[in-house]
Amino acid sequence: MSPNPPWVKKLAPASPHGGELLAKERAASNIDVDQLAEYMFTKEALDQRERVLKVLAADPVFDKSQNYFQSREARIKASLAKAKRLTQLAVQHKWSSEDHACANDLLTEATPYRLHDTMFLITLREQGTPEQQKLFLKKAENYEIIGCYAQTELGHGSNVRGLETTATWNQADKTFILHSPTLTASKWWIGTLGKTANYAVVMAQLIINGKHYGPHPFLVQIRDLKTHEVLPDVHVGDIGPKFGFNTMDNGFLLLNQLKIPHVNMLARFSRVDPDSGKYQRPANPSLIYGTLTWVRSNIVLQSGSTLARGVTIATRYCAVRRQFQDLDAAKGTVGENQVLDYTMVQYRLLPLLAATYALHFTGQGMVRLYQENQKRMSASAASGSDARRRPGPEELQPGTDLLADLHATSCALKAYGSTVAGEGLETCRRACGGHGYSSFSGIGSFYADYLPTLTWEGDNYMLTQQVCRYLLKSARAVVAGTAGDNDTTRILKTYLDRRDTTGAAYDILASDSDLVAAYAWRVAHLAFDALQKRDVEKQSWNSLLVDFYRLSTAHAQYMVVKSFHDALFDKEQAQALEGSLDRQAVAVLHRLFRLFALHTLAEREADEFFAAAATTARQIALARRAVMQLLSEIRPHAVRLVDAWKFPDWQLDSSLGRYDGKVYEDMFHRASELNPLNDVVFDSNPNSRVLFRGEAGMSSKL
Amino acid sequence: MSPNPPWVKKLAPASPHGGELLAKERAASNIDVDQLAEYMFTKEALDQRERVLKVLAADPVFDKSQNYFQSREARIKASLAKAKRLTQLAVQHKWSSEDHACANDLLTEATPYRLHDTMFLITLREQGTPEQQKLFLKKAENYEIIGCYAQTELGHGSNVRGLETTATWNQADKTFILHSPTLTASKWWIGTLGKTANYAVVMAQLIINGKHYGPHPFLVQIRDLKTHEVLPDVHVGDIGPKFGFNTMDNGFLLLNQLKIPHVNMLARFSRVDPDSGKYQRPANPSLIYGTLTWVRSNIVLQSGSTLARGVTIATRYCAVRRQFQDLDAAKGTVGENQVLDYTMVQYRLLPLLAATYALHFTGQGMVRLYQENQKRMSASAASGSDARRRPGPEELQPGTDLLADLHATSCALKAYGSTVAGEGLETCRRACGGHGYSSFSGIGSFYADYLPTLTWEGDNYMLTQQVCRYLLKSARAVVAGTAGDNDTTRILKTYLDRRDTTGAAYDILASDSDLVAAYAWRVAHLAFDALQKRDVEKQSWNSLLVDFYRLSTAHAQYMVVKSFHDALFDKEQAQALEGSLDRQAVAVLHRLFRLFALHTLAEREADEFFAAAATTARQIALARRAVMQLLSEIRPHAVRLVDAWKFPDWQLDSSLGRYDGKVYEDMFHRASELNPLNDVVFDSNPNSRVLFRGEAGMSSKL
Repeated sequence: MSPNPPWVKKLAPASPHGGELLAKERAASNIDVDQLAEYMFTKEALDQRERVLKVLAADPVFDKSQNYFQSREARIKASLAKAKRLTQLAVQHKWSSEDHACANDLLTEATPYRLHDTMFLITLREQGTPEQQKLFLKKAENYEIIGCYAQTELGHGSNVRGLETTATWNQADKTFILHSPTLTASKWWIGTLGKTANYAVVMAQLIINGKHYGPHPFLVQIRDLKTHEVLPDVHVGDIGPKFGFNTMDNGFLLLNQLKIPHVNMLARFSRVDPDSGKYQRPANPSLIYGTLTWVRSNIVLQSGSTLARGVTIATRYCAVRRQFQDLDAAKGTVGENQVLDYTMVQYRLLPLLAATYALHFTGQGMVRLYQENQKRMSASAASGSDARRRPGPEELQPGTDLLADLHATSCALKAYGSTVAGEGLETCRRACGGHGYSSFSGIGSFYADYLPTLTWEGDNYMLTQQVCRYLLKSARAVVAGTAGDNDTTRILKTYLDRRDTTGAAYDILASDSDLVAAYAWRVAHLAFDALQKRDVEKQSWNSLLVDFYRLSTAHAQYMVVKSFHDALFDKEQAQALEGSLDRQAVAVLHRLFRLFALHTLAEREADEFFAAAATTARQIALARRAVMQLLSEIRPHAVRLVDAWKFPDWQLDSSLGRYDGKVYEDMFHRASELNPLNDVVFDSNPNSRVLFRGEAGMSSKL
Repeated sequence: MSPNPPWVKKLAPASPHGGELLAKERAASNIDVDQLAEYMFTKEALDQRERVLKVLAADPVFDKSQNYFQSREARIKASLAKAKRLTQLAVQHKWSSEDHACANDLLTEATPYRLHDTMFLITLREQGTPEQQKLFLKKAENYEIIGCYAQTELGHGSNVRGLETTATWNQADKTFILHSPTLTASKWWIGTLGKTANYAVVMAQLIINGKHYGPHPFLVQIRDLKTHEVLPDVHVGDIGPKFGFNTMDNGFLLLNQLKIPHVNMLARFSRVDPDSGKYQRPANPSLIYGTLTWVRSNIVLQSGSTLARGVTIATRYCAVRRQFQDLDAAKGTVGENQVLDYTMVQYRLLPLLAATYALHFTGQGMVRLYQENQKRMSASAASGSDARRRPGPEELQPGTDLLADLHATSCALKAYGSTVAGEGLETCRRACGGHGYSSFSGIGSFYADYLPTLTWEGDNYMLTQQVCRYLLKSARAVVAGTAGDNDTTRILKTYLDRRDTTGAAYDILASDSDLVAAYAWRVAHLAFDALQKRDVEKQSWNSLLVDFYRLSTAHAQYMVVKSFHDALFDKEQAQALEGSLDRQAVAVLHRLFRLFALHTLAEREADEFFAAAATTARQIALARRAVMQLLSEIRPHAVRLVDAWKFPDWQLDSSLGRYDGKVYEDMFHRASELNPLNDVVFDSNPNSRVLFRGEAGMSSKL
């Protein structure tokens, strides 16, 4: 578009400008932002982020100015270029794999290499034999082959056992024949498959002599390594546009009686003996399950930071945006209120700000727990037992194995954290008023791109059943007196002990640990209620799914509240906290904890706390008052609290969330000077057959 | 893309096919779909829909096959072509304005003519003098000029009084000088302005001799009528891509001391005397407010049908999709469950199905009330009083004027209905599992396009304040004994009468009218609670915004429950109902009523009903059981109940929501045969500078 005319260039926004308002906000809080950020992320991680950011921001391949305007096709092509460039930069700058991951994180878009970098490499490492790793892993690590992980089918997502693709063992020439017997057998949604991968790990039903052995992983070449053309008897392509995630080539794949050699069945845990054609049992079916726990723990950690992007944008913009005077304002009052001063806006936004911190500390706790467990298992391996022989999820006994607890907790928290983050992003977008709807707000694409997280690595609704299976088992063991000692069994026992004596009787308003205890009480109440319905009243599993969803959510909320509480008051962590942060920052974190816990209790789940007799109705009413009080106490620190997340403007790519508050200048610049639609003249006369004329004189007709 | 190879063409989905499953569903319910549809929409409206649909579906301009693949630029250009074609078809087929509106409704996308067809024409009609109508209205009706309505600015949305654009009266040459003094004065978000309109009604602060008279409407030409080039001292363009609504050219507009003649100030209600330069007072400031009530009533009606599109798609797909067996299924059970059989899915979906009917009957009730009021006012005009002299919103007395009640109700219902529809669409999308995320589900774009409705015609949060102002006024009048008699004052009085005697004591489980009364009780409780806080405790308005939001929502929910109840049991309506529908359909509608009312009460707002003592805790527990029972009773009719909405496949444009259940065939067809990305080969080798090769041999380099 032609540049703005001179009389437009002279215009400034009405006073006071966004920059002044944000400066005032920052001056009104004494939180040391750098100190808080270092406590949350470590100085090393922050330095790494800055170092990598410099490289990306200087490279024209990563230019973002047309991102919001590009078609899906243009975006995915640009994203392929970015993926390639990242691998070149990694070599050039000798990046560690953490540096590379940091670069992807800053890029904040899924490139077409993503599933190669993650699931494909992980699967080769975990499920390939040493021989297979030699054959394939090195090449994959050097990007000589690009792969993906093809499990989900058009007709089967969650139910892996229902997959239709078959792999039939052919003793004659010692091959497997991979085949898609139906249209619904088509692999679907597979990231990196659509246009990019030339190899795929295909999950298929192993058949030997007509007998089915369930789904197993097979490595299948699908495209030529040089021409990248599709190979014969393979039908593969991109599945089309999606609500978000459009920089990724999610793909489909059909195979027509395709032969692959024996060595292409990934055989670390189960194999077909090539001579006898006999199936050899899995050595350990549950290793992958450890990986999934790891993946889910990271989803919890990331749910905090993803939500924090939206909260950062909305908080800054609500400090810059001014609208109306207070209805009670004295006559003659000049100027309008910052939107952030309205309690309705605080009520929508600040509990989410608290949730970002809550999820961050919870995610860190999960990762720590996972690492502890890994250490423990390595130690037991060193002491002679086989580290590979971890029990499967069905074998685990509540209270006896950290992994069982960790598995259930990771399922509950993945479902809850990603739901809070996904829905929270949309709340942030709406809190920006009309401008939140503009692509330039940045929140819309974060939201749209994040939504799959609610479905993948275990659908959030499905996962709650796994959580409840564990909680029911725990409750049964507690009743039977066979339970080991861990946090879950402890809270169940406490409930049984107190239920018919003191009752809950927690002073949630005066005592933080009582507040946590009230959350634990509610979990126990719902668990025993579900146990009663299932074991005594013999209600069907299906009829209890809604109860299970509630129970799992209650469990997750308890874990988040407890983790946040531990981060502040657990002996070791509290020492680290007080050694790192000023008193005022600790005090504000404490308020965020109380806001998250009291808001969730009194504004979201009041009926459950009341029905469980975890609190009285009077306490809930008082908790609501306390929430309003906490909002006003946290309000002055809001901008600094989002600053501490340290998102660079480059990453947020948002007019509304700019650090410098130049919201309106940036909106106008993008609309008028970057918007390619403004290079075109529309002929709006309904009787003219001309539709539009472009700068180059091109025209289009009806 | 090259067509699918022969071996792919032969593939069918796994059995049973979607068509068989939907046929089974339809056979299992005895609801007469056509009869129900005629009752809801009238036979005339259904015939009209079919007649117009035939025209659209046969015209290549309205071809939808590339909609989901097109860039924003391509889509808006195509949408301009559609808008033009519609006006040609309207002439050709002698369409009434209702036919034309029906065509736009079937198109289900906002074309660039939309704000011309609506706000621009309405404003000219309502606010132009006969002279101005002669000058401008005819031309506008014939599309000789295309206009828009430019109110919102970059810095001011909701607060109209804060608009910065000025219109300064210039006595010397009897002109107005329109000017944008700042960047934030830029008009923003104005539909049809960005590329299409050559005229704009610009709301600007009228200034005469340095004195400000508030915002007034001015008609400003902005583009040449022939070349469509922008005129001097005008800077106008499209504001860029948005989360949705991308077929519309929402625009910006800056004016640089632009002169317009005296006749261009729309002067039906207020004017500047050209000779004296004196401002002449508005004859009636509240006519527009009647229009807004009309607009909001229609938003309520449409919220039901918009949500119904998502519910139709999700319900049909959940009947076709099969996943897992029931955990309690006997060993040896063959096949998987339809997803719609899982209670968790029913729990998410069927209350929304009930909401579509509830909002439909509520919207119809609103429109009826509005028309009654119009009639009453015409009658009073005929009897001598000036119909134009309606009281403004501030003057209205509770209980004395239907319009006051109607205004408050339309605000409350607009906020509530559009929130339920917007959030419900997203719930529908997620209920489709992973495939809901594909653009081919159709729900994603309905959701994204619908979201502005939550903000425009009164932001949903802002509106709740207007509702509460009215309810507080009513409560004050009831306490003072000065209230007239209408439904609102009646429910407030009932509460005061019973509060200290019988209490609520409603049997919500046995009696439908008691269920409605419990909703009324909660409204009254919250209203008097707010009155106490505001008038007695003198709490600030700002501190009560969260309470107001709750009160307004409670009021809206009461109105919806009451409207649905009236549709079934109000004498006149019940007669019509029983005269039109079979007994089984009436019985199912009754269950939908109970599901909506009990679900909202017990699953969404339980804590409020309990805190208001509108119900007991025990009743809430029983209501939850009743909800589960109702879900299972409505389940067999679900597909027929969505069929009765009679959305043509052409309108839904959804793979998942097809009437014939050919879900997987359609997904595959669109992905493999319509997807232009599959015409391109990606070179995924990170060290190759080639990025991709197209069919035509074109290539792109890094």
